[in-house]
Amino acid sequence: MEGERIVAKDKKEYLFIPGPTPVPPSVLTAMTKPVIGHRSGEFSRLYRSVVEKMQRVYQTKNDLFVLSNSGTGALEMALANTINPGEKVVSLVTGHFAQRFNRIATVLGADVETLEFPWEGPVDLNVVEKKLEEEDYQAVLVTHNETSTGVVNDLAGLGRLTAQTDALLLVDAVSSLGGVDIKTDEYHLDMVMTSSQKALMLPPGLSAISVSSKAWERVEKCQERTVYFSLNDYRRLMTKGHTPWTPAVGLLYGLEAALDMILTEGLEQVFGRHRRLARAVRAGMRALGLKVVAAEECASPTVTAVWAPAGVDPDELRRFLREELGIYMAGGKGSLAGRIFRFGHMGYVGEFDIITGIAALEMGLARLGRGVRLGAGVAAAQEVLLTRLTEGGIKK
Amino acid sequence: MEGERIVAKDKKEYLFIPGPTPVPPSVLTAMTKPVIGHRSGEFSRLYRSVVEKMQRVYQTKNDLFVLSNSGTGALEMALANTINPGEKVVSLVTGHFAQRFNRIATVLGADVETLEFPWEGPVDLNVVEKKLEEEDYQAVLVTHNETSTGVVNDLAGLGRLTAQTDALLLVDAVSSLGGVDIKTDEYHLDMVMTSSQKALMLPPGLSAISVSSKAWERVEKCQERTVYFSLNDYRRLMTKGHTPWTPAVGLLYGLEAALDMILTEGLEQVFGRHRRLARAVRAGMRALGLKVVAAEECASPTVTAVWAPAGVDPDELRRFLREELGIYMAGGKGSLAGRIFRFGHMGYVGEFDIITGIAALEMGLARLGRGVRLGAGVAAAQEVLLTRLTEGGIKK
Repeated sequence: MEGERIVAKDKKEYLFIPGPTPVPPSVLTAMTKPVIGHRSGEFSRLYRSVVEKMQRVYQTKNDLFVLSNSGTGALEMALANTINPGEKVVSLVTGHFAQRFNRIATVLGADVETLEFPWEGPVDLNVVEKKLEEEDYQAVLVTHNETSTGVVNDLAGLGRLTAQTDALLLVDAVSSLGGVDIKTDEYHLDMVMTSSQKALMLPPGLSAISVSSKAWERVEKCQERTVYFSLNDYRRLMTKGHTPWTPAVGLLYGLEAALDMILTEGLEQVFGRHRRLARAVRAGMRALGLKVVAAEECASPTVTAVWAPAGVDPDELRRFLREELGIYMAGGKGSLAGRIFRFGHMGYVGEFDIITGIAALEMGLARLGRGVRLGAGVAAAQEVLLTRLTEGGIKK
Repeated sequence: MEGERIVAKDKKEYLFIPGPTPVPPSVLTAMTKPVIGHRSGEFSRLYRSVVEKMQRVYQTKNDLFVLSNSGTGALEMALANTINPGEKVVSLVTGHFAQRFNRIATVLGADVETLEFPWEGPVDLNVVEKKLEEEDYQAVLVTHNETSTGVVNDLAGLGRLTAQTDALLLVDAVSSLGGVDIKTDEYHLDMVMTSSQKALMLPPGLSAISVSSKAWERVEKCQERTVYFSLNDYRRLMTKGHTPWTPAVGLLYGLEAALDMILTEGLEQVFGRHRRLARAVRAGMRALGLKVVAAEECASPTVTAVWAPAGVDPDELRRFLREELGIYMAGGKGSLAGRIFRFGHMGYVGEFDIITGIAALEMGLARLGRGVRLGAGVAAAQEVLLTRLTEGGIKK
């Protein structure tokens, strides 16, 4: 069992799982502000500020709500407010989290047409286009950044397809928003859901949802079947800057601080940093003779899934990293369990976090008898990181 | 508009609303621990510890789950997992929050029989008994401590009635659990829901639900219609000490610290403290010539609703308290709006918090031209508080 081993309380530990991610000190500090009443003027100021800043990160003028539940709840909210039982939706599946989105639609009674794609790659837009030509659907469900494989899907392309139809495009952007460039309005994304503990640098507990006018039209035709996730209630209370149910006020203070950090660094810079760090991780893996699950053109800027080399049990590797080095990486999910490990690099991460993660992997592989040249992965990552200076890139 | 007035940032402020309530320093500190992965062994330890301690506060051996959403979500979870559309439930309504519970049942498609009682008093058990004799119901919905009126209902009595029938007793204990003695098992309470920001002394963001074996039998017969609120998923993952969806880890660390405080003080002592402080508040109000909404025998230990005296607008009184004194009290809801104010006294409250609240009310009434004798309410409260010493009561 994990965790049974007793370690010194103050042992330095490093979170490289694809969420929750490390929380910056200024965010932690903001979360310890005295709790305020959620029907007060100060709460309205806080909530409106958080929503407005979140809209900037979403690159949207659509309505947006911050929710006090996990991203899974936000996905359920999107479906429960737009799809009546029996209505047809297309679910695009390229991994474990897309399967979860699919399951929610099924449980809510939608007539779900599932399009399965190989887990190592992205959604094939031609297949989707053909499907949308064949029949009318109420919605297309997509996982933007499949956390289980490190594959990122083409939202701009999907948006172009759905914008020509009556179908809404519902996007799970849980592990990408805030770390990957998502132009919600320009891409015609009708509902985009994310959560706090990934690129937004917060502890878990909050999520968010944006709602286009096309989505609102559907909400108005949809039978009411949830109170907690009622978009109409959120819209009604937003006129006061309040939420319908008691919100996680402390986390909202933290979110305000995190959004201030993101907007101060600049969206372009934040997205560029994620791309550059991800490229460094992939270069490091290649230099160690390891193969990244995602092809370069669809590789995620926030998480990298890596095939375990022959003869190495990735879960044994992870155990060594965790127990001996205090480094936490994630394992495979579903059909990839026991075959890959996952290296998260989103949110409050910098260049030397990447160096640390790669160095730890080198030590783990060496220890497990895999003949790696220590430092080779680090050097390859350093090469990539140095391009920031030679290209005159922006400092983090 | 509230909040538009600029006040000094470090102005001392006092929260006397009936939740969120003040957070103890040790709880705040616990919440700033580094975030951990929610699929780790340390998370299992934390979650199992929190559940076990919560069961002691619930006084139950029933299954119990801590949820990352507000109490409203926990109410929806109870209903969505036990009541199929069209099934009959009895909803006992004595105030605003009971109306919300009623609304959730209605939206989820239950056939809701609403029993309305005067808002100033509790549920009449004879009426409930008669109703349960007339017809078979799947559940009885009750709000234990009606936060909008400060009236507490008799759970032991209701449990005796429902235990003889097939009906489940579903209890909204959001503003009572942890502050009022609720013997979940002894009273035959099938599902008890509460949330973090009331007597449990945490910021908002968590809630909890207990599930009796009688309730589990119903869950097994119930059609699946939610993923986020699926009790079966919570039960399945509990075998690993995990939650099905990403939980609010930081708040769970805080909850562990808060439960440690409650169990160290002792349940009897905590409940006794709440009763004594509430008695002091009511004595103070009477000494000022004010009338408490609830009769003495059904008055809540956690919140006191008070009629505004003739000629005093309670919202103007509250505005004065807030803007001039930094004291936050709540107003009336629904039919009581503009007629009452509410004084919360639950969670991390001690004797001098009560003195502070009463002194502020005296100053507010004096300022609004109501002829009160300054200090009279405080003196009456002091009399009650001193009985702790003369009766050899337990020190907080």
